Amino acid sequence: MGTARGTLGLLGWLVLSLAAGWVGSRFAPGAWYESLAKPAWNPPAAVFAPVWTVLYVLMGVGAWLVWRRAGFSGASPALVLFLAQLGLNALWSFLFFGLHRPDLAFLDIVALWIAILIVAVLFWREDWRAGAVMLPYLAWVGFASCLNFALWRLNPGPAV
Amino acid sequence: MGTARGTLGLLGWLVLSLAAGWVGSRFAPGAWYESLAKPAWNPPAAVFAPVWTVLYVLMGVGAWLVWRRAGFSGASPALVLFLAQLGLNALWSFLFFGLHRPDLAFLDIVALWIAILIVAVLFWREDWRAGAVMLPYLAWVGFASCLNFALWRLNPGPAV
Repeated sequence: MGTARGTLGLLGWLVLSLAAGWVGSRFAPGAWYESLAKPAWNPPAAVFAPVWTVLYVLMGVGAWLVWRRAGFSGASPALVLFLAQLGLNALWSFLFFGLHRPDLAFLDIVALWIAILIVAVLFWREDWRAGAVMLPYLAWVGFASCLNFALWRLNPGPAV
Repeated sequence: MGTARGTLGLLGWLVLSLAAGWVGSRFAPGAWYESLAKPAWNPPAAVFAPVWTVLYVLMGVGAWLVWRRAGFSGASPALVLFLAQLGLNALWSFLFFGLHRPDLAFLDIVALWIAILIVAVLFWREDWRAGAVMLPYLAWVGFASCLNFALWRLNPGPAV
C-alpha cells in the first residue's frame, strides 16, 4: 500500500470515528440532565469532551491499523463490527440525551460494551497495537455503563 | 451415558457450584460492610442469599448439560473456564468482605464478568439451554460490578 493511500486511510478512519462523536454531540446535556440526581462519583461535566475526543482518535487509529494490514475484505468481521459499535455509540446519546431514556440507553451501552470487547479481541488478532488502543475505550464505556445504571436507578419515573 | 451416571453428574456439578458459594459465604458482611456508604439503589441485604442460591444452581445445571453432552475432554475449554470463574467468584467475597478491598474486588468482578460471558458463549455452542441458564448470572454480576464500583467510589480511603 502506498504511503499516500495509507495516510488518506488514516484520515478516513479518524473522520469516521469523530463523525460518530459529532452525531452524538448533537444530543447535548441540557436542563433535563442538570436536573437529574447524580451519584457522588459522577465526574465533572468538563471531563467528558476531552476524554471522548481522545477515545475517538484512538479507535480511529485502531481501525486504520487493521484496515492497513488486512484491508476491508481481509478483516471484514472486525471492521463491520467496528462500524456497528460506532452506531451504538452515537445511538446512546440519542437515547439518553435526546429521548431522556436512561433505561433504553443502558441496554444500548451494555450492547456497546460487548461489541467493543469483541472488536478489541478481533483487532488484537490482526495487530496487537490495534487491540491495545481499544482498551481505554472499553474501560471508559464500562465506567459509563455503571454511571448510566446509577443515573437510571437514582431517577425513577417516566421519561420527561 | 447411563441415567445413574447422568444423575450423579448433575449432583456433582451442583455441589461444586454451591461449594464455591459456600466458600464465598465464609467471608460474610459484618460491621465494616454495615458502615459503608451505600448507593440509593443498593438492594436490601436479604436479596443476596436467595439470588445467589438460584444462580449457583443454574450454573451447575449449565455445566452439567455441557458435560453430559460433550464430556470433560470434549468441552474442556468451556468447563475449565467454568471452574476458573467459580474461583474468581469465591475470590470476590474474600477480597471484598475478607480483605475489605473494594478496589481489588472490582478488578476481580470485571474479570469474572468477562469469564462468564465467554463461558455462556462456549456453553451455548454445545447446548443453547446451557448458555441460556448462564444469562441471569451474567446480568446479576453486571449489576454487582456496578454496585461494587459505586461502593468503592463512595468509600474512598485506606482499607480498614
